[in-house]
Amino acid sequence: MSSFFERLRADSLAVWQDYTRHAFVQGLADGSLPEEAFRTYLAQDYLFLIQFSRAHALAIYKADNLADMQEALAGLKAILDTEMDLHVGLCAGWGLSKDELQKLPEASQTIAYTRFVLETGMRGDLLDLQVALAPCVLGYAEIGRDNLTAQPQGPAAKSYRNWLDEYSGSGYQGVAQAFSDWMDRTADRYLTEARYPALLQTFTQASRLEADFWRMGLDAAR
Amino acid sequence: MSSFFERLRADSLAVWQDYTRHAFVQGLADGSLPEEAFRTYLAQDYLFLIQFSRAHALAIYKADNLADMQEALAGLKAILDTEMDLHVGLCAGWGLSKDELQKLPEASQTIAYTRFVLETGMRGDLLDLQVALAPCVLGYAEIGRDNLTAQPQGPAAKSYRNWLDEYSGSGYQGVAQAFSDWMDRTADRYLTEARYPALLQTFTQASRLEADFWRMGLDAAR
Amino acid sequence: MSSFFERLRADSLAVWQDYTRHAFVQGLADGSLPEEAFRTYLAQDYLFLIQFSRAHALAIYKADNLADMQEALAGLKAILDTEMDLHVGLCAGWGLSKDELQKLPEASQTIAYTRFVLETGMRGDLLDLQVALAPCVLGYAEIGRDNLTAQPQGPAAKSYRNWLDEYSGSGYQGVAQAFSDWMDRTADRYLTEARYPALLQTFTQASRLEADFWRMGLDAAR
Amino acid sequence: MSSFFERLRADSLAVWQDYTRHAFVQGLADGSLPEEAFRTYLAQDYLFLIQFSRAHALAIYKADNLADMQEALAGLKAILDTEMDLHVGLCAGWGLSKDELQKLPEASQTIAYTRFVLETGMRGDLLDLQVALAPCVLGYAEIGRDNLTAQPQGPAAKSYRNWLDEYSGSGYQGVAQAFSDWMDRTADRYLTEARYPALLQTFTQASRLEADFWRMGLDAAR
Repeated sequence: MSSFFERLRADSLAVWQDYTRHAFVQGLADGSLPEEAFRTYLAQDYLFLIQFSRAHALAIYKADNLADMQEALAGLKAILDTEMDLHVGLCAGWGLSKDELQKLPEASQTIAYTRFVLETGMRGDLLDLQVALAPCVLGYAEIGRDNLTAQPQGPAAKSYRNWLDEYSGSGYQGVAQAFSDWMDRTADRYLTEARYPALLQTFTQASRLEADFWRMGLDAAR
Repeated sequence: MSSFFERLRADSLAVWQDYTRHAFVQGLADGSLPEEAFRTYLAQDYLFLIQFSRAHALAIYKADNLADMQEALAGLKAILDTEMDLHVGLCAGWGLSKDELQKLPEASQTIAYTRFVLETGMRGDLLDLQVALAPCVLGYAEIGRDNLTAQPQGPAAKSYRNWLDEYSGSGYQGVAQAFSDWMDRTADRYLTEARYPALLQTFTQASRLEADFWRMGLDAAR
Repeated sequence: MSSFFERLRADSLAVWQDYTRHAFVQGLADGSLPEEAFRTYLAQDYLFLIQFSRAHALAIYKADNLADMQEALAGLKAILDTEMDLHVGLCAGWGLSKDELQKLPEASQTIAYTRFVLETGMRGDLLDLQVALAPCVLGYAEIGRDNLTAQPQGPAAKSYRNWLDEYSGSGYQGVAQAFSDWMDRTADRYLTEARYPALLQTFTQASRLEADFWRMGLDAAR
Repeated sequence: MSSFFERLRADSLAVWQDYTRHAFVQGLADGSLPEEAFRTYLAQDYLFLIQFSRAHALAIYKADNLADMQEALAGLKAILDTEMDLHVGLCAGWGLSKDELQKLPEASQTIAYTRFVLETGMRGDLLDLQVALAPCVLGYAEIGRDNLTAQPQGPAAKSYRNWLDEYSGSGYQGVAQAFSDWMDRTADRYLTEARYPALLQTFTQASRLEADFWRMGLDAAR
């Protein structure tokens, strides 16, 4: 049986692929992505993760049972205790110190997606929040799988391959699968057909804002 | 076809009647309610209305379409622009000035019900919020109808009858009917059977907290 | 004595003027703005107002006293009961029906600013919310005053002058002054110098997102 | 230099001592507390901890910097990953299984305090939230210290002494001290004298609701 994510993905396919097969992603995979584009992306992604931690904290707040709280806490710890340190390390390799990162102004595209997710979740219920988070959590996993064997060329080849490895690796793939299963369990309780169009709109909008985020990286290198 | 409220009411009947047929209500209807109990209730009900206004504002925030926003705004204006002034007038008749009212500490029972409503609504969706509000909005309408012809006796007879008139009158009955219809429309979009037990628990809990509110009045007169 | 707004404005002057003296605004004032740019702006501004109503409802929820609640309610009614109808009328003149308006997808720039405001307000206190709202409420008033005597030329001259009249008129100027005074009263209670940098950042960010909103209009006409 | 907590405590001393020196606490310390009172308290305290976890998640959401987020996450993990398991173990010793605990209806007193904390925090800023949490976090630490050498007598002596040990032990005392220091840092940024009366009211109200929570235990054994 297919997952709720697969339904949303199929019903927004063109927008979804604009995001997951974006020129930024193609450039990562073949190595043609300008380094400045990647560097800009990395720095904003750090600010993004701070807001994503807040979104996972919001999921704990929104949960109405202990199991959902623990599921969301696992995600929160994965970001705040682990992923952000990895990110700081990655950024250091690109000459971005932790202090610099925290002082950086958020780009409009970073604000747009993160506040959309947080606000959608606060206004609605846990399902709304998960659907808004899904393009990020599950899209990165798909991008990882799509580019499992990609061999970037050029000066930043190693960094780009490292990035792809992180998201194609079993660790992240497992996180993504757990998230999808969790969203299915929430949908079992909260999904109605009358709500579906609004949820699809949230998913599509969030995917579009993800594509804007790639675009921001590319624009920085023009 | 019966309303969603009628379903909730039937499934929590004992608790519901503990609230709507409470000794406080019986005392209002026959006039035996000690005046100090009523005075205490009135003052706390003023503080209650302030939080209830916030709950209606929250409903506007929670709404995902213009029609729901306008419905909630109508309720908010009814309270903030009209009902609170009436209340101030009523309190003045009992020797409670507006200044005194605002400085009064909230009783635990006032805090319990109002914060439960606000928090349930913030955590969940518009349906959760409406179900938490329903015992107040619809319970007072039922109490009004139940005591349409009651003839309180004794020193506070006129005040008690005035109070019953307010809630049995066509104005308030119309507000209550509109609220019930609005909750039905929300349930049409958001209700699933898997959610029903939690919604029933919210409704039951809120009804219990309403009964505690009457009890607070009675305790003040012991 | 100068207002808190004037302090924020002075400390973000370059960004502020990028917004209030934007090419879009210059084009409105001299009539050179492409009609498609204005039409796109108008339609998105309708969606913007829906979220702005939610932000005012949030201000009521956030308020910790009756006076602040009533102040915010006045703003909310001005938008939901009046301004949105005016807007629908204005849009009709440009061939945009109310139904079309509500079905329109929100542009990224609309999402970015509105969700930033709502989220900043939910995370923080009433002062955070007001500071995030200020560039819109007070910037439009300044744009109105700056262009009090502008005489747009060309095919859309009348529409553009009407728009400028709305915001330079005494009605809107009074709303803006009341908002600024209200923010001053909140700042009297909640402002600390330690908070000022973060509040300035909110104000600057919101101003930047307003400029992005103008840019969205211009881009639609390229 | 004294802490912000010490200021709040001094300014609400009578209410504070009604809570920290409550008959329930005296009964714990000398062993005269009826076992049914303790059992009822324990079970409700489990439900309380679930809401307290949500309050810590809310603190992460409310934080505007990474350091505050990590501070709140440490508190959240202490509760969700550790304290709740300890609690389940403690309850098992009193014949309360985890399943039973989760199905238990929340007492009005549990609802009142927990929802007051959550709602105060959502409405206001991080400082409001911390002040609402303080009577619980810091009051239990004081109760632990006050009864460091207490020697309860009677059938439940061992359980009562265990409970006192938990809160007088260096682990919990360290958690409490860290919380107080954290609140001081927040106050350094957000406290104004104009806000102080409202913060004191939050603190006093929360202390009163804690005393109600003890009372709930005692009432169960009457």
